[in-house]
Amino acid sequence: MNWDHIWIDVNIATMDKQSASPYGVINDAAIAVKDDKIAWIGARADLPEFDVLATPVYRGKGKWITPGLIDAHTHLVFAGSRANEFEQRLQGASYQDIANAGGGIISTVKACREADEQTLFDLGRKRLNALAKEGVTTVEIKSGYGLDTDTELKLLRVAKTLGQHHHVDVKTTFLGAHAIPPEYQGQTDDYVELVINDMLPKVIENNLADAVDVFCEGIAFNLQQTKQVLTAAKNAGLAIKLHAEQLSNIGGSELAAKMGALSVDHIEYLDENGVKALSQNGTCAVLLPGAFYFLRETQHPPIELLRQYKVPMVVASDFNPGSSPICSTLLMLNMACTLFKLTPEEALKGVTINAAKALGLAEQVGQLTVGMQADFCLWDISSPAELAYIYGVNPCEQVIKAGKIIAQ
Amino acid sequence: MNWDHIWIDVNIATMDKQSASPYGVINDAAIAVKDDKIAWIGARADLPEFDVLATPVYRGKGKWITPGLIDAHTHLVFAGSRANEFEQRLQGASYQDIANAGGGIISTVKACREADEQTLFDLGRKRLNALAKEGVTTVEIKSGYGLDTDTELKLLRVAKTLGQHHHVDVKTTFLGAHAIPPEYQGQTDDYVELVINDMLPKVIENNLADAVDVFCEGIAFNLQQTKQVLTAAKNAGLAIKLHAEQLSNIGGSELAAKMGALSVDHIEYLDENGVKALSQNGTCAVLLPGAFYFLRETQHPPIELLRQYKVPMVVASDFNPGSSPICSTLLMLNMACTLFKLTPEEALKGVTINAAKALGLAEQVGQLTVGMQADFCLWDISSPAELAYIYGVNPCEQVIKAGKIIAQ
Ligand SMILES: [Zn+2]
Ligand SMILES: [Zn+2]
Repeated sequence: MNWDHIWIDVNIATMDKQSASPYGVINDAAIAVKDDKIAWIGARADLPEFDVLATPVYRGKGKWITPGLIDAHTHLVFAGSRANEFEQRLQGASYQDIANAGGGIISTVKACREADEQTLFDLGRKRLNALAKEGVTTVEIKSGYGLDTDTELKLLRVAKTLGQHHHVDVKTTFLGAHAIPPEYQGQTDDYVELVINDMLPKVIENNLADAVDVFCEGIAFNLQQTKQVLTAAKNAGLAIKLHAEQLSNIGGSELAAKMGALSVDHIEYLDENGVKALSQNGTCAVLLPGAFYFLRETQHPPIELLRQYKVPMVVASDFNPGSSPICSTLLMLNMACTLFKLTPEEALKGVTINAAKALGLAEQVGQLTVGMQADFCLWDISSPAELAYIYGVNPCEQVIKAGKIIAQ
Repeated sequence: MNWDHIWIDVNIATMDKQSASPYGVINDAAIAVKDDKIAWIGARADLPEFDVLATPVYRGKGKWITPGLIDAHTHLVFAGSRANEFEQRLQGASYQDIANAGGGIISTVKACREADEQTLFDLGRKRLNALAKEGVTTVEIKSGYGLDTDTELKLLRVAKTLGQHHHVDVKTTFLGAHAIPPEYQGQTDDYVELVINDMLPKVIENNLADAVDVFCEGIAFNLQQTKQVLTAAKNAGLAIKLHAEQLSNIGGSELAAKMGALSVDHIEYLDENGVKALSQNGTCAVLLPGAFYFLRETQHPPIELLRQYKVPMVVASDFNPGSSPICSTLLMLNMACTLFKLTPEEALKGVTINAAKALGLAEQVGQLTVGMQADFCLWDISSPAELAYIYGVNPCEQVIKAGKIIAQ
């Protein structure tokens, strides 16, 4: 066998969906990479002969390997700080007071419109570095803080460029229909037309997005407007996904699922019909405990129904300045267990195999099996559940991305 | 002026209690250190002449300086992992199932009794490093996972040694009365006697603790037992504090306050009489949002009453393997605001000036004024509130401890 590297004396949580053991665990295992792929994985006892002198061997001393983490829902390219409105709200200001003072999402939109690409890139890189240090190897980044054509394209270009300059793979999502910009207040249909007829063609022409997303909610875009945007995206050959059922149930998830969406995200208010629709259409349920925590929500997503209907559950950070200002995918594992009572295995699936599915990457990453891209982490933990249980001392000791060992 | 170092072009949140401005802010400020103390602080415009060639000058480019953070309540020296019981509970096991399987605090006690000092030291150092990276310069560490004389002394020795080998100052608290060990089940009074007559004298003889703490609760030590331990501690000249009113109100806070306790900690169930007692006796209220979060508690500490009676509020991590496995003082600022609705300024006071008071260090640290120990951090933030608002990208750029610049 002719491999580039091999790790032995490790326990591996493969997250292999074919495995009968929890987490797809192989104890006392070995994993070998060749080029950017996993070339061999299994029990060390079964390891075939290989050229011991020519192959660098890493000894894990009983530590654990998992797939690289995947954060399938972030808004990490943005400028500006919302610390002041956070403070004002805690001092007693109402949301209306803050909106009147130019706060809320509009303050982030203003900051993003004003920021140049280098500033946005530098801010994004710091955040990507923080995620990468905790084992993230793939991340989704949405636009949606531009709300005009130039700025939406700028945000997507920055996100794409981040992926080109960083070992973390970046998937980009066009979320022009995130909110109604000030200049279109009361003219939502006109804004939707701008999204579909001006922004989307340019996004496609410049190959800036892998998917299209909409914030479908009473306070944002209604079902018909959502359908228009998603239809245009589908017709253009892009994947679709949806912010849905976060604050109320207006049927967005069902619509998106029936249209073949990769995922619906938030879904605190999703009902059984909606869950059925996800199940029947292979749509993932993306749970965002950071936003639930930060907004002090009390309505839990329908975890039991999602289990019952075998809907793949994803856990993501939703990192953004308004409703989830916590830039840590790893902490979301703890929040998913603590706030939503996911098991640690469900939480870990949510940032590996199921997150890959939610990004259309199920054949490339998210599981450790032969032929998959060699994206994995070595962790100083005593069991995979520890990743969801304890937080603060970063247990990520090594990151391997597409077969390359990343210097930390 | 003959200084060792000076920082200019910074904004400083002095947390000076004499200051009229929020956070004690001085914009466009300067701070100079000599030996281990703050030698000068004020507006840059008021800076006296100093030897520019002989004094290293740091330019902060408009960034912020605050006092070094103080975590006034941790249990960070422990061995073992409770990941498995975390997992079992989320899989549906009851607390009784877990206790029957040797889980709960007793599993940590077993692991601590078995661990040698080097193992405990290495584990503690990793955790202390994680806190230090986020700007912590002083930390309190409790024993309480030994519950026999040898192990309690061992845990305190490790905590003391950590402080001697790390730039972070460590204050140690003897918490022998944390739980009733298995060998004393049903004989709590006998165990209290052991704590008072065997453990405490040896703790004092070896100068291992700055304070004594008790877990006063229906499931732990009652009011009379608590009083016995605290009285013995006071008679020996040690400071006292209390875990109290976490799960019910049995009057522990009032007792401790009247005995002159530095702090009472948790206090979700504290009532107005208890708050009055704190106020009248200068006792701090230590809020532990990490435990509130992790235990999914719903009873909030009486924040409004604490404000009304001007009780100094402290925010701490309570980092421990059973009820608060989050080793981040900085994240506690966000949790204190999000879960307890503290203002960011109250939260920051809780890890600076008020935390110093809770550790009996009010004259040394926690504020940036001339003559105080030069413990401070330089942060890449646009306002002090940002420390409580956003989390994940560590904004701590520089730590100065007792006048020395700490390499990161
Ligand atoms: Zn989102
Ligand atoms: Zn505690």
